[in-house]
Amino acid sequence: MKATQFFISTLKEAPADAEVVSHKLMMRAGMIKRLGAGIYNYMPMGLRVIRKVEAIIREEMNRAGAIELLMPVVQPAELWQETGRFDKMGPELMRVKDRHERDFIIQPTSEEVVTDIARQELRSYKQLPKNFYHIQTKFRDERRPRFGVMRGREFTMKDAYSFDRDEAGAAKSYDAMFAAYKRIFDRFGLEYRAVAADTGAIGGDLSHEFQVIAETGEDAIVYCPTSEYAANIELAEAVSLLAERAAPSEALTQTPTPGKSTCADVAELLGRPLAQTVKSLVLATDELNEAGDVVKSTVWLLLVRGDHDLNEVKAGKVEGLKGGFRFATVAEIEEHFGCKPGYLGPIGLKKPVKIVADRTVANMADFICGANEVDFHLTGVNWGRDLPEPDVVADIRNVVEGNPSPDGQGVLAIQRGIEVGHVFFLGTKYSKAMNATFLDEKGKPALMQMGCYGIGVTRILGAAIEQNHDARGIIWPASIAPFQAVVCPIGMDRSEAVKEAAHKLYEELQAAGVDVLLDDRGERPGAMFADWELIGVPVRVVVSDRGLKEGQLEVQGRRDAEASKVAVADVGAFVKARLSV
Amino acid sequence: MKATQFFISTLKEAPADAEVVSHKLMMRAGMIKRLGAGIYNYMPMGLRVIRKVEAIIREEMNRAGAIELLMPVVQPAELWQETGRFDKMGPELMRVKDRHERDFIIQPTSEEVVTDIARQELRSYKQLPKNFYHIQTKFRDERRPRFGVMRGREFTMKDAYSFDRDEAGAAKSYDAMFAAYKRIFDRFGLEYRAVAADTGAIGGDLSHEFQVIAETGEDAIVYCPTSEYAANIELAEAVSLLAERAAPSEALTQTPTPGKSTCADVAELLGRPLAQTVKSLVLATDELNEAGDVVKSTVWLLLVRGDHDLNEVKAGKVEGLKGGFRFATVAEIEEHFGCKPGYLGPIGLKKPVKIVADRTVANMADFICGANEVDFHLTGVNWGRDLPEPDVVADIRNVVEGNPSPDGQGVLAIQRGIEVGHVFFLGTKYSKAMNATFLDEKGKPALMQMGCYGIGVTRILGAAIEQNHDARGIIWPASIAPFQAVVCPIGMDRSEAVKEAAHKLYEELQAAGVDVLLDDRGERPGAMFADWELIGVPVRVVVSDRGLKEGQLEVQGRRDAEASKVAVADVGAFVKARLSV
Repeated sequence: MKATQFFISTLKEAPADAEVVSHKLMMRAGMIKRLGAGIYNYMPMGLRVIRKVEAIIREEMNRAGAIELLMPVVQPAELWQETGRFDKMGPELMRVKDRHERDFIIQPTSEEVVTDIARQELRSYKQLPKNFYHIQTKFRDERRPRFGVMRGREFTMKDAYSFDRDEAGAAKSYDAMFAAYKRIFDRFGLEYRAVAADTGAIGGDLSHEFQVIAETGEDAIVYCPTSEYAANIELAEAVSLLAERAAPSEALTQTPTPGKSTCADVAELLGRPLAQTVKSLVLATDELNEAGDVVKSTVWLLLVRGDHDLNEVKAGKVEGLKGGFRFATVAEIEEHFGCKPGYLGPIGLKKPVKIVADRTVANMADFICGANEVDFHLTGVNWGRDLPEPDVVADIRNVVEGNPSPDGQGVLAIQRGIEVGHVFFLGTKYSKAMNATFLDEKGKPALMQMGCYGIGVTRILGAAIEQNHDARGIIWPASIAPFQAVVCPIGMDRSEAVKEAAHKLYEELQAAGVDVLLDDRGERPGAMFADWELIGVPVRVVVSDRGLKEGQLEVQGRRDAEASKVAVADVGAFVKARLSV
Repeated sequence: MKATQFFISTLKEAPADAEVVSHKLMMRAGMIKRLGAGIYNYMPMGLRVIRKVEAIIREEMNRAGAIELLMPVVQPAELWQETGRFDKMGPELMRVKDRHERDFIIQPTSEEVVTDIARQELRSYKQLPKNFYHIQTKFRDERRPRFGVMRGREFTMKDAYSFDRDEAGAAKSYDAMFAAYKRIFDRFGLEYRAVAADTGAIGGDLSHEFQVIAETGEDAIVYCPTSEYAANIELAEAVSLLAERAAPSEALTQTPTPGKSTCADVAELLGRPLAQTVKSLVLATDELNEAGDVVKSTVWLLLVRGDHDLNEVKAGKVEGLKGGFRFATVAEIEEHFGCKPGYLGPIGLKKPVKIVADRTVANMADFICGANEVDFHLTGVNWGRDLPEPDVVADIRNVVEGNPSPDGQGVLAIQRGIEVGHVFFLGTKYSKAMNATFLDEKGKPALMQMGCYGIGVTRILGAAIEQNHDARGIIWPASIAPFQAVVCPIGMDRSEAVKEAAHKLYEELQAAGVDVLLDDRGERPGAMFADWELIGVPVRVVVSDRGLKEGQLEVQGRRDAEASKVAVADVGAFVKARLSV
């Protein structure tokens, strides 16, 4: 490609509304152009990256046996009513009426449509397993679209859906997708982690997020540097930090702690370690009658160590809390604890509450907690002696850095990531709702076991840039760069030698399969170099009269501190080697 | 590709709602699957054709210097309000509100968005010409979606938009696109015509439709078999069939024609040629005041020969009718002609009307027309003698087969076509509405001259099939077939020799760049052959034990009456030659 036949449009300054670095750089590099909130034009430079990302995904999906089709953007509401999502989903589901006032939605994903295809097309166990995918425009009417393509409203997603005869088959389909995703992200050339994620109501352990590592990521990823363990913070298991409970050594004592309502303040006041305090969190669950009225509420006291945080996803897995919970009201707290929040604890309750202790708390001795009296705490609290054993002991806290890895292979570290892919076992959630059955070997109808597998195509661009950039601009991995190399002739209009050498090198690289651009715009060197550093092309070759005279051209990798001087005749081979073409 | 790794789903019968042959065959061949009215899933077999169509379009667009980008499906209404299309377009424009009740549309085309890009990005004459295109999902909420992908609601379109400094530049851009379209349709391997089309209010002659020839086409294409002349019926020029007006030879006579209100009936009753009769059509135009009320109406009498039909597009180009017209009411007719419709004519009017004669009518002598008296016609009518010369003489009729070609190079023929592409000079229609200016060489702002160029990607499939099919199914041109060749082994599960030979041939063809499928499903020969004839793969090779023993395999082109026997070793080369790979 020659620059004069392409469209290059860079900006010195990013628009004011660009908040994160990837958004700023994509705007400045002319990759995207804002059309509306969360809606972008993909300009020629950006579209080239998208097409490369799509091509890698497509190759690996096909290699893994998935079959590409194309499901519509505008989908009839009927199918979404079958699964209940038409009503259950909030306004992020874009609803639209046609000229006959019939309801449609603009697809955020395609579970309903693909399940509708499967229930019509896959009639026998002989046709299973099958995995259908498409790469298609999606829309989610985000309340607050932001971060450019990272949380846009219209975006491109690859979504695949597997159909199996049984759970064992579904696990195999899942594994095949997991392996394909690893190949895809390896080929992107991005640093990433596949982390175990919560499976919600489905259960099991077949849910992984593919997270691109970036300091600016919204998600916390827990991993063990000395083992394979990796999970997102919602799921990562927190083991007890105390192997067993020590014997009581202190007497139970009520201590004044005036105005000190946080564990940290109490520990400081008393000169005791924060790790000896216990934090009280009060939840409530409601029982409803058929009319939907609350007929009974139960109050729960959740205890985590003073230096730990409650993990609500984990709390939601405790028997009795699975159906959903809320934080208790001040009235409920006062009714059960006889005290306002800030000084609560498990001893001296006015009314019974269900007590759930985190694993670590359950093994603590001589701990400190609220006295259920304003401005007072208890020290030397011991399970069994001062209060009954907890009703439930469970993992209900977030892990923190340095916690033991649940696989026993080391200690945990935490880093930030951007979720760009998700593989998920769906079970029969959709096949049941839509009655997607097949005839098994005995001729009996059985529900298909499903999995779904997404990659945010346009989001990959943002994540890649968040991970790979510097003060000068984007640093694309070679596999998804808009161009792999750029030939920058200096003074091409004045020097026939430069013109000839630049074209020769351009043609040589093209012939070798390098996706190369010849910058024939006639820009001054400074502006030209700044453009390509901003756009982030991996390798730049400068063709100048001086270089030609010296017999050496300057080749500079985007991450190189300095250019390499390479003999003119060797430049092609050198560039190819740098790009591993 | 192996069949067992792909998804093949054929039907013996087409669904009842499939009206046209392409729709039936696409459903039966498992290329599309209906999701809703005018909304289809593109199944794996159909998607392969789409991807090939897109690839050819993309290559030729790029070759012609057009630059690909991607504009959103969901577009803010503001831009469409700038051009007035948000209000002017009917319900076929799908309107949608987001969670904040802001208006959006689902794009039917992208003139507004691309003009918005151009007015921001193209600031200097040095940046022109530019041609941006995208291949993207479109939606038109058709009142009556039908014919499968031929008139669907959601479809894929390639739309390109050129921006030039002046009309001469725009004409060059237009010519480049016209040439690219010819290459594209040549490569599709379809019989087509580029026909001149009406330019509407823009004027000039820069509008061509690319019509795929098919008996079932909705459009009438006029062409001259002995010259290059081709136009659609709206535009095709009808010359006078009479070189000059003969002198009057009959007396003006009022003749009773009881109950005969059509020219054909009158001609028959009187024993005169239909070509001696003149048909009267009464139109009206309204003058409005600023409040939009009609302040004055004018009645027009349009005269075409009895065997000709009025062309409303041409009528709309007559001075005075350009602003829009309607058919006159019966009251208006009776007021001006003193007679009810069926016996109207230009002689004996009660009130003045504007008379527009078709070119042929203007040269007629001794003609027959209504007498403005029920059950009476006039014969021997002559211009100048019996009534004044017409106010306007113009081409206002459709051409008919056998009419002289307007280029004087022969006579016209008419065939049916399916419009699949359109190249169109827009002038400053959009740039003016949206103030898309650039700075010219003198530093003065000037409006960009635009052109737009569309190809209905998904419609190509339907048109190709309407043109190429037989009783057994689809006959794809090799360039856009889902597979170019299929290897059909017979009894692969029983015969190692068949299995080995089939795989060897499959691999050989693959290595030679043939897009080949190995049908390893283990279907019986009859069902297998029927599938591939229905799906329309251009070349089929049968690998059987008998063939291998004889040393000859059967190779059959989809259009061949009989298979060719080809020596086993030569089959690969034979297939390649058949496909010109």
